[in-house]
Amino acid sequence: MRVMITGIDGYLGWPLALRLGALGHTVGGIDTMFRRQWVKDVGSCSATPILTMPQRMQLYSEFVGNRLAFWQSDLTNYQEVLKIYGEFKPDAIVYLGEQPSAPYSMIDAEQAISTQSNNILGTLATLWAMHRVCPKAHLLKLGTMGEYGTPHCDIPEGRFPKGSYWSQLTADGTMGTTHQDLSNLIFPRCAGSWYHLTKVHDSYNVEFACRAWNLRSTDVMQGPVYGTRTEELKNEDRMATRLDFDEAFGTIINRFCVQAVLGIPLTVYGAGGQTRGYLPLEDSIRCMVLALEHPPQLGEYRTFNQFDRTYTILHLANEVVAAANELGITVEIGAHENPRIEAEHHYYNPDSSGLRAIGYHPIACMRSVLKEMIKDILPHETRLQNYADAVAPKTKWR
Amino acid sequence: MRVMITGIDGYLGWPLALRLGALGHTVGGIDTMFRRQWVKDVGSCSATPILTMPQRMQLYSEFVGNRLAFWQSDLTNYQEVLKIYGEFKPDAIVYLGEQPSAPYSMIDAEQAISTQSNNILGTLATLWAMHRVCPKAHLLKLGTMGEYGTPHCDIPEGRFPKGSYWSQLTADGTMGTTHQDLSNLIFPRCAGSWYHLTKVHDSYNVEFACRAWNLRSTDVMQGPVYGTRTEELKNEDRMATRLDFDEAFGTIINRFCVQAVLGIPLTVYGAGGQTRGYLPLEDSIRCMVLALEHPPQLGEYRTFNQFDRTYTILHLANEVVAAANELGITVEIGAHENPRIEAEHHYYNPDSSGLRAIGYHPIACMRSVLKEMIKDILPHETRLQNYADAVAPKTKWR
Repeated sequence: MRVMITGIDGYLGWPLALRLGALGHTVGGIDTMFRRQWVKDVGSCSATPILTMPQRMQLYSEFVGNRLAFWQSDLTNYQEVLKIYGEFKPDAIVYLGEQPSAPYSMIDAEQAISTQSNNILGTLATLWAMHRVCPKAHLLKLGTMGEYGTPHCDIPEGRFPKGSYWSQLTADGTMGTTHQDLSNLIFPRCAGSWYHLTKVHDSYNVEFACRAWNLRSTDVMQGPVYGTRTEELKNEDRMATRLDFDEAFGTIINRFCVQAVLGIPLTVYGAGGQTRGYLPLEDSIRCMVLALEHPPQLGEYRTFNQFDRTYTILHLANEVVAAANELGITVEIGAHENPRIEAEHHYYNPDSSGLRAIGYHPIACMRSVLKEMIKDILPHETRLQNYADAVAPKTKWR
Repeated sequence: MRVMITGIDGYLGWPLALRLGALGHTVGGIDTMFRRQWVKDVGSCSATPILTMPQRMQLYSEFVGNRLAFWQSDLTNYQEVLKIYGEFKPDAIVYLGEQPSAPYSMIDAEQAISTQSNNILGTLATLWAMHRVCPKAHLLKLGTMGEYGTPHCDIPEGRFPKGSYWSQLTADGTMGTTHQDLSNLIFPRCAGSWYHLTKVHDSYNVEFACRAWNLRSTDVMQGPVYGTRTEELKNEDRMATRLDFDEAFGTIINRFCVQAVLGIPLTVYGAGGQTRGYLPLEDSIRCMVLALEHPPQLGEYRTFNQFDRTYTILHLANEVVAAANELGITVEIGAHENPRIEAEHHYYNPDSSGLRAIGYHPIACMRSVLKEMIKDILPHETRLQNYADAVAPKTKWR
């Protein structure tokens, strides 16, 4: 398979490239290299030292045995994207090339507008380029579980499932008509930041392209990913993917593990009852490969809710404390006013059966992944102390 | 009230400015003047001769007695928008400044991307500017009934109403659990073009701004508007608002009336069973004024489905034929392969009780409005014959 990865220099893009290469696929990549700059802009760096893109291309050749095709390009430049897809002729495009931070998108108008511009218009340019030069390719698009927010009801995978109906209680308290077919309509989204909203907008745009142009897509609503390792990254330190821990780009478990190493009380926001679905990095890569190996039909728009299981923030904090303790490190849990606007106790029951149906089996217990992460971060403690200021929440939603 | 109208030079913007001025409100306007260029780009013009913006400002002063504040600015330029709202200090912003054509957005990547960029990023810049300099202003945002598409169920106003539940038929054909509260979630959208999708994205963005920042907004899902006249436009020809009839910017009834005058068989697409909600121009202006006079609470995101009643395309064509016949003009109904992707026979039952609850009473019978329109277009027949090529559908969805 010829797979183009947009955002190949990112946390998920790089390990996915190595996995696909190891499996014998031909891999291409596009990246603006914006992510490295954004993280610098917020005063931080990757906890794991990472190679430059030219070094990564060299390493990829050594490891996989053939060349990684790479373009440093802006995905919002339609003419460039058209040319690249036309040259590479992808069987699949894994679209990871978006600004991925909710807090970054809430800093000010400039960041909100550039986030929506980059994410929405980049995806739109890719849809048009696919329509023009590779209409049979499979678009594996990274969304987020955050598109749904936390509604007071079960969350299906992307759309209302077959046989879904809506009804309304009448004034006398009885149920109204139930002949209101919702099947296949987009399930209501309730996103919590300008960043999360871009993923909602992308979902609607991608769904339309499948309906209007017969494209095919898997839209992945992924929960936060944690971890430093995949099968390939275990080989040697030079393989490492980035690991962010600042308040903007560091996702929660990664951030907690760095805090544990730096002796910073874990930054639990508010009551800590916020519940989300999480999965380890190795599982994220396996799920994406499974989706690529089981593509949808032409014209099909398919959604997977991609996570292992759900946890509250407080549960995660306690797990990190326990993992650190097992390594002889004492960690405290801090209390922070919640900078976000979100429910801190809520119902949460998302379906995630789609990936399991095509073969996803969660592979690791969280505790062992957390210990592995802390051990990977420990050698960098002295360097990371210089960036400790980047950890505390500064960006407020209001 | 101090009201800022974005897109003040447009079909709705100009008559709304005159109405608000006549009612004693202070009116400001922003426009890039892109619309005039876009219509030229597709080889067409306004059927009604219209004044330039400086002439309109002069006329406004004569008619209303005070000055119309006007800025020729790009709404996607956040710094400019911030400055303008800061100077004008609006109590309400009526946001009409979007690229409004579905076919235009389907021409090619360039038009699709510029449409999404202009519409989404412009609205986003306005939300940030409101947050910074006029957080109590009422945003009256123009959406479209086309956001919903034509689902197999009733369409509420914007969100699932209070007491809404969803359930799913179980394998044995009985209804599953009904304790799945959907209240207040965005009702599923199913838009049919890159343009319509911008309105969906705007709705989600505006809803979030109300939730996160306590802004207030009325989101108007409007059906296609038709007509040449409002109370103010009846005064004299110089008052005229634009009237487009080309395949891209001409909405269906306006296009049919010009076709009737030019002797072109009415361009019914496909089976003609497509059903939508319509309203006359005078009603559209009255509805917007009603919404401004009955603003939502701070933090409230309110949606109105804005139309008089629903008709099939074939019914509209027959009405135009009948109106023309009454004026001694013979009109044929043509048959065109449908360039769009849409259902040509479908269930359609949208709620529109919100505006009626605050005082909207439809004022005119369609037949009389159609005759008025045809009479207004007749004097321009010779000039418009030069643009007859712009009428036939050229832009295909696939």
